[in-house]
Amino acid sequence: MDQPIETHEHNREGFTVTLGKESPLKLDCGVELGPFTVAYQTYGTLNAERNNTVLVCHALSGDQFVASTHPLTGKPGWWHILVGPGRPLDPDRYFIVCANVLGGCMGTVGPASKDPNTGHPYGLSFPVITIADMVRAQAMLIDHLGIEKLFCVIGGSMGGMQVLQWASMYPDRVYTAVPVGTAARHSAQNIAFHEVGRQAIMADPEWRGGQYYLHGTTPRAGLAVARMAAHITYLSEAALRRKFGRKLQDRKEVTYGFDADFQVESYLRHQGITFVERFDPNSYLYITRAMDYFDMAAEHGGVLAKSFKGTAVRFCLVSFSSDWLFPTNEMREIVHALNAVAADVSFVEIETDKGHDAFLLDEPELHMTLGGFLSAAAERAGIGSP
Amino acid sequence: MDQPIETHEHNREGFTVTLGKESPLKLDCGVELGPFTVAYQTYGTLNAERNNTVLVCHALSGDQFVASTHPLTGKPGWWHILVGPGRPLDPDRYFIVCANVLGGCMGTVGPASKDPNTGHPYGLSFPVITIADMVRAQAMLIDHLGIEKLFCVIGGSMGGMQVLQWASMYPDRVYTAVPVGTAARHSAQNIAFHEVGRQAIMADPEWRGGQYYLHGTTPRAGLAVARMAAHITYLSEAALRRKFGRKLQDRKEVTYGFDADFQVESYLRHQGITFVERFDPNSYLYITRAMDYFDMAAEHGGVLAKSFKGTAVRFCLVSFSSDWLFPTNEMREIVHALNAVAADVSFVEIETDKGHDAFLLDEPELHMTLGGFLSAAAERAGIGSP
Repeated sequence: MDQPIETHEHNREGFTVTLGKESPLKLDCGVELGPFTVAYQTYGTLNAERNNTVLVCHALSGDQFVASTHPLTGKPGWWHILVGPGRPLDPDRYFIVCANVLGGCMGTVGPASKDPNTGHPYGLSFPVITIADMVRAQAMLIDHLGIEKLFCVIGGSMGGMQVLQWASMYPDRVYTAVPVGTAARHSAQNIAFHEVGRQAIMADPEWRGGQYYLHGTTPRAGLAVARMAAHITYLSEAALRRKFGRKLQDRKEVTYGFDADFQVESYLRHQGITFVERFDPNSYLYITRAMDYFDMAAEHGGVLAKSFKGTAVRFCLVSFSSDWLFPTNEMREIVHALNAVAADVSFVEIETDKGHDAFLLDEPELHMTLGGFLSAAAERAGIGSP
Repeated sequence: MDQPIETHEHNREGFTVTLGKESPLKLDCGVELGPFTVAYQTYGTLNAERNNTVLVCHALSGDQFVASTHPLTGKPGWWHILVGPGRPLDPDRYFIVCANVLGGCMGTVGPASKDPNTGHPYGLSFPVITIADMVRAQAMLIDHLGIEKLFCVIGGSMGGMQVLQWASMYPDRVYTAVPVGTAARHSAQNIAFHEVGRQAIMADPEWRGGQYYLHGTTPRAGLAVARMAAHITYLSEAALRRKFGRKLQDRKEVTYGFDADFQVESYLRHQGITFVERFDPNSYLYITRAMDYFDMAAEHGGVLAKSFKGTAVRFCLVSFSSDWLFPTNEMREIVHALNAVAADVSFVEIETDKGHDAFLLDEPELHMTLGGFLSAAAERAGIGSP
């Protein structure tokens, strides 16, 4: 059962497709984008009924390499624990698709892409995109793949925002929606943390007004600081205490200096340094901004329930007790909104001390919850078991 | 009663004194420091019995200007709400002393001070100091002022660490100790946030290995980012939601750009920019490091109670329900340690949504708690009421 998953790679980014050739993508900011490239990865096979597609939506720093080796880091896919034969997202049963988001840096068009009008990378002339724009681009990809309706849209964190947006914008194209560790709007505290990250990047002189591509530089230090600050919010105080506490790094005594005396410092620095190797700083600006702008209720006069009025989508929401970035009470607001429109909702809060990152980790209750929900839904949808 | 407090200012920093002329201060790192300057401020008059001194210990970004106009910002002192006629710390009753900490930048020796051996500012050649070192320097100041025993040592956050250290190192010189919103050791999460701040400063090219003084530059952007990240931890999610939520800054619609669309962004940027005007970036490195190193139990085999064995000091501890930087459970550990040695302890957790910053704010329950505790203790100590 543990054989490697066939990935149909065409190039380093997996598949790439040019979309918006005939009619461009109209972004929320008013700009029309197109033609543009989307890079995606698939696992498994679309069945004859074309009803077994699972769209996985990735988080801020994620990409399309859900369950295949990352071409830059050589690490296993970010959700390889959930995706694979015998796992909740089984490619023997489902056709699993994940696309790099709009504004990303793993093959989909983003600020590092060449602007066809200038021949240079966009930099800050790339239009600011929203979660809804990301979802519109994914819908164009799904059209391109000849798929009318998705069996499931699933994702954690910013991925969960996309799931909610899919269910709201395209309710007839979604059979089940599984938002994990997310919220229907980005909180003031989360905007604040993102702003710190953006300021760190833009304060780095190597950022050069966003056109570092032309100078052969990159604001490495700024992006590393942004990642370090963000990374703290992905964990919990309890997890940090359990994992690191005040343990020293390869030394018996503090050094009375500014080296990484503590393991937690060394760990954080490592997180910063490795992130820089695989992520475009401008993409970080654009994607955090898309999350900040996310507020599903806003276009419905602040009434979230209206986003889901009359929905037939079956929802399964999962939160984590120690997630302080997307706390359970924000997930519960979504449940209340769905209840208000008599939607079909399951909601599970998983007890864990692993914080927001729990959605990426080997969390047995998460696997059981998703496995149970998806296989029951697949039965109902008439998708054969492997 | 609301007349201005007499401040006896000698110069911009208040009083300054040169200490360690005969015998230097032996720092925890092994370096001997001396002679060195300490800048301090006083309010009220030392009584004939010399038993009415309150030593106020300031926090990371604080200074000696507890209740007098700040010479750089022109703002009222950081604890003016608590210090003044008719207030819990009444200069008509107490002789109130606050010294800028060792490593600071408001007149006490720190990395921006001139190294007598080189004639240049210390920069990173300034020795790394600890909370205990700060307290040792304060004890030298108290000796200099001819005071044997303090009526009270009080402070919040890093100030509270100094209070605990005073009670542990000099139990016979402290009548009452009032640590507010603090901990007996710095947590992994707090070390992590400090490390982000330090990395932001050191990543700024204008930091120049800590010797920016010689180049006439200053790592403004790095320090601003450090302050922004830290400032989020001083508030609570609830306070941010109540104060800002997703409200926009002087605009009706988002701009689809990287300006401060949201009020919370604008507020944070302001916090960063104004801090740079009054604080030395290297001091920020040194003082955060002192906090990271703070672990009172460490020198007692991890048993905090041993730090207070046989103590006659009367303690009053205050925590705030929404303080996630120094949460109540960490304060409770101190209470348990004090209970274990049968110390005289009051402990109050104040219900507030204002987060860690509550200790600086007009929090009526804090004022009542401190007022009641101090005036009862003053009665017992035979300090006349004003």
